[in-house]
Amino acid sequence: MTEGWVRHALEAKRAGAALAPDVWARLIDAFLAGSIDEAPIAALLMASAINGLDGAEIAALTDAMVRSGDVLHFDGVVVDKHSSGGVGDSVSLVVVPLVAACGVAVAKLSGHALGHTGGTLDKLESIPGLRTDLSPDAFRAQTERIGCAISAQSERFVPADRALYDLRDRTGTVGSIGLIAASIVSKKIAGGASAIVFDVKLGSGAFMRTIAQARELAETMVGLVRRFDRHASALVTDMNEPLGPSVGDALEVIEAREFLRGHARDARLAEVVELIAVEMLAVGGVPRGEAPARVRAALETGAAYERFVALVEAQGGTRAGLEGMRVPDARAAARADRAGYVAAVDAVAIGERARAAVEAHGPTAGIVVRARIGDRVSAGETLADLVGAGDDAGDLAAAFRIDDAAPARRPILAATVRDADLAAVSNGSAP
Amino acid sequence: MTEGWVRHALEAKRAGAALAPDVWARLIDAFLAGSIDEAPIAALLMASAINGLDGAEIAALTDAMVRSGDVLHFDGVVVDKHSSGGVGDSVSLVVVPLVAACGVAVAKLSGHALGHTGGTLDKLESIPGLRTDLSPDAFRAQTERIGCAISAQSERFVPADRALYDLRDRTGTVGSIGLIAASIVSKKIAGGASAIVFDVKLGSGAFMRTIAQARELAETMVGLVRRFDRHASALVTDMNEPLGPSVGDALEVIEAREFLRGHARDARLAEVVELIAVEMLAVGGVPRGEAPARVRAALETGAAYERFVALVEAQGGTRAGLEGMRVPDARAAARADRAGYVAAVDAVAIGERARAAVEAHGPTAGIVVRARIGDRVSAGETLADLVGAGDDAGDLAAAFRIDDAAPARRPILAATVRDADLAAVSNGSAP
Repeated sequence: MTEGWVRHALEAKRAGAALAPDVWARLIDAFLAGSIDEAPIAALLMASAINGLDGAEIAALTDAMVRSGDVLHFDGVVVDKHSSGGVGDSVSLVVVPLVAACGVAVAKLSGHALGHTGGTLDKLESIPGLRTDLSPDAFRAQTERIGCAISAQSERFVPADRALYDLRDRTGTVGSIGLIAASIVSKKIAGGASAIVFDVKLGSGAFMRTIAQARELAETMVGLVRRFDRHASALVTDMNEPLGPSVGDALEVIEAREFLRGHARDARLAEVVELIAVEMLAVGGVPRGEAPARVRAALETGAAYERFVALVEAQGGTRAGLEGMRVPDARAAARADRAGYVAAVDAVAIGERARAAVEAHGPTAGIVVRARIGDRVSAGETLADLVGAGDDAGDLAAAFRIDDAAPARRPILAATVRDADLAAVSNGSAP
Repeated sequence: MTEGWVRHALEAKRAGAALAPDVWARLIDAFLAGSIDEAPIAALLMASAINGLDGAEIAALTDAMVRSGDVLHFDGVVVDKHSSGGVGDSVSLVVVPLVAACGVAVAKLSGHALGHTGGTLDKLESIPGLRTDLSPDAFRAQTERIGCAISAQSERFVPADRALYDLRDRTGTVGSIGLIAASIVSKKIAGGASAIVFDVKLGSGAFMRTIAQARELAETMVGLVRRFDRHASALVTDMNEPLGPSVGDALEVIEAREFLRGHARDARLAEVVELIAVEMLAVGGVPRGEAPARVRAALETGAAYERFVALVEAQGGTRAGLEGMRVPDARAAARADRAGYVAAVDAVAIGERARAAVEAHGPTAGIVVRARIGDRVSAGETLADLVGAGDDAGDLAAAFRIDDAAPARRPILAATVRDADLAAVSNGSAP
C-alpha cells in the first residue's frame, strides 16, 4: 500500500510542483529501505522527467543518493573529471596523469562502456596486469602517494544509483537532465572530489544532441556541485565525429601513451586535452594564468608520461607491459567511393562497430579513423581502418558522408560553464 | 528487464506523443499476462496523467480492459446509468425502477462507497435480505424478466480495472480524466449496456471541482462510448451540497422509497431524477418529446414504485422488509450558532460523518440535512440531524457556513453533453 504522504507527493509532482527537500529525502530513503515499492518511484521518475526538477530538488535527490552508501574524504584538494560519453575519447587517460604532474591530485572514478561509447575502465584493463577495482582505501592511498588514481566505482558508493538507474532504464526516463545530473554528481561527491570538471559531449555521437540540452546539463551539474560547496566547471565539446583517431580499448591506450610521450599528438585531441587539463588545474586552485604553461611543461618534460607509468605500476601493470602494446598489423580499409569533402561522420556507427570488434576479437581490435570532417579525399582513399578484426571492413565506409562542398567549420569548444558564472545558484546552500 | 518496444513507448509518451492503438493493446495485454512488470506501467500511467490521452488512445486502453474479462450481451436495448460519486445521491435507487416502468430496460452495475461518497450497493444491502452479488447470468435474466437489476460488478468483468486502479492509487494518478473514463466506460461496456447516461457531479462535494474538469470528463466518456457504437449522454449536476436531504445507507433507501411512493419528494432530488430519467429514456430510444410525460405517469400511477418492489423481491428482499425500514428516532441536532443565510455546505464533511456513523452504528445511522444553500435560518435552528448515532452531533454544525447575504443561486444542471453534439468524434471507429 502506498502511504498518503507518498501519494500526495506524487500528485504534487504530477501537477508540476517542486517537492520539498525533506520529501525527496524521505522518498529515496524509504525506497532504498524497501518500505516504498517500485511502482510509486517509477511514477515519480516519470513525473520528474516530464515536469522537470528544480535545483533544490536535484540537490536533495543527490544528497539522499550520496547518503545511501560510503563517502570518501580526502585531505586537501582532489579533482575528478567526467565525460558524458563519447567515441575515440581518450582524454581521461591523458589528463589524469598530466594534471597530477602539474601538482593537483586527481582521483578519478570511471565506468565501463555504455552503448556506443567507450569506457575508461575497459581501456585501462587492456594494459597487461592492470586492475581498476581499487578498494576505497587503496584508491585514497594511491591518490595521496602518487597524485592520481583511476578506479571503478566501488559497490559501496551510491548503491541508490544502481537501483534508480535500473528503474530509469525500465521506465524510459534515462534521458532526463535532472536525473542524469543527480546520478553523475552523486558518484563524484561520494568519491570525495573537492572539484570536478565535466566534459559534456555534444553532437550526433553524444547523448546530448542539441546545444540547449548540453548547456542545460552543464549548468545543472555545475550548479549542483556548487550546492555541495565544491568547485566545478563544465566544457561542452564537439562529438559529431570521433574525438581522436583511435577507437577501441587498447588502441586508445596506445594513443594516450604516444600522446604523453610526444610521439604523436592528434590536433583535435590535443585541443580538448589542454582545455580540460587547464580547467582541472583552475578548479583545483592553480591560477588560471599559470595553468597553460604548467600543462605544456608537464608534457614537454615527460613528467606527465612518467606519472602515467607510475599510475599503471601502482595499479598492477608494468612499464614494459604498457610500452609493449602494439597496434595490430592486420587491417581492412574502408575506402571512399567518390572524391569530395568529408561532410559528416557517424560516430555512433563507428563506436558500435569498434565495440563489436573488441567483443569479437579482443581488446586490441578497433578502428583507426583516417579522414576527419572537412578533409578532402579522393575516390578509393582510406577513410578508416578496421584493425585486428579480420580483412573485411564491411560497411564501415557508410559511416562517412562525402559531399562536393566543404562543410562549415565547427569549433571544438561549444560552451563553457563555470560555477562563478552561475550567480543564480550562488545562494544555494548545501543540503 | 523492460523490452525495447516498451521503453520506446514510454519515451514517446513521456515526450507527449500519442501511442498507436495496437501499442496500448500490447502494453495492457502484456501487463495483465505478467510479462511486463509494474514499474513501466506505473510510469506509463504517470506520463498519461501528465501529458493526457487522445480519444483513440483511451478507446484502445478501454478495449484492452474490456477484453481482459467476461463481456455480457443483451438482446435489445439495455440502459445503464453512472454517477461520478456524490453525497445524498439516491438517484440510482429511484431512476432504475422508474425508467424500467417507462418501458426501457435498465441493467445497472454499481460499486461500493468510495471515500466520502455513498455507494448504491451499500444502500441496497441495507434492505433486509437483499443481495447484490448477482452472477452475470442472473443479472441478465432478471433484467430480461422484470426490466431492471442492480448488481455488483462481477469479478469476471474487467479484471484489468482492478489491477490498474490499484496501480493508479499507488502512483497518484487516480484523478486523470482519461484513466477515469477508461475505468468507468470499460465496466459499462463489459456489462452489456447499449446506452449509458453519466451523471458527472460537480462541486465541493464531488471529485470534479471545476466545470472545465467536469465537462472534459463528460465529453471524454460520451465520445468514448460513441467509439464503441453505443449511445451516451452526460449531465453535469451540482454537488456543492448533499443532493437529497438523507445521507446514509438505509436513510437513502427510505428516501428513494418515499419518493417513488409519492410520500415525500425533495425538490432538488426530483429535478435530477427527472433529468436523468428523461435522458435514459432518450438514449434508450424513446422520443425525447414523449419522455417527460412517461416519467410523470410512472411516478403518479405507482408503476415505478411497484417496479422497485419487484426489483427488491427479485434480489432476495421483501415488500414488508422494504416498507418496514424506519428512520431511527434517536437524533442529535446540529444547530446554527447565528442567524443568516446558508451560504455553503461542506458535503465532504457530511459524507464522511455519515459514513462514520454507519460504520459505528449500522446501516440505519446517518445524517438528515434540514437546511439547504440559500435557506434563511435563525440562531439555534436545526441545520441537520445526526440520526441513530447517539446524542452528540459533535461539530456537524461546522459543515454549514452562514452569512449575512443570500448566496447567488446555482442551477442544478451545469452542462449537458450528448453524443450527437460531439461531431469531432463522430468519425471515430470502434476499436
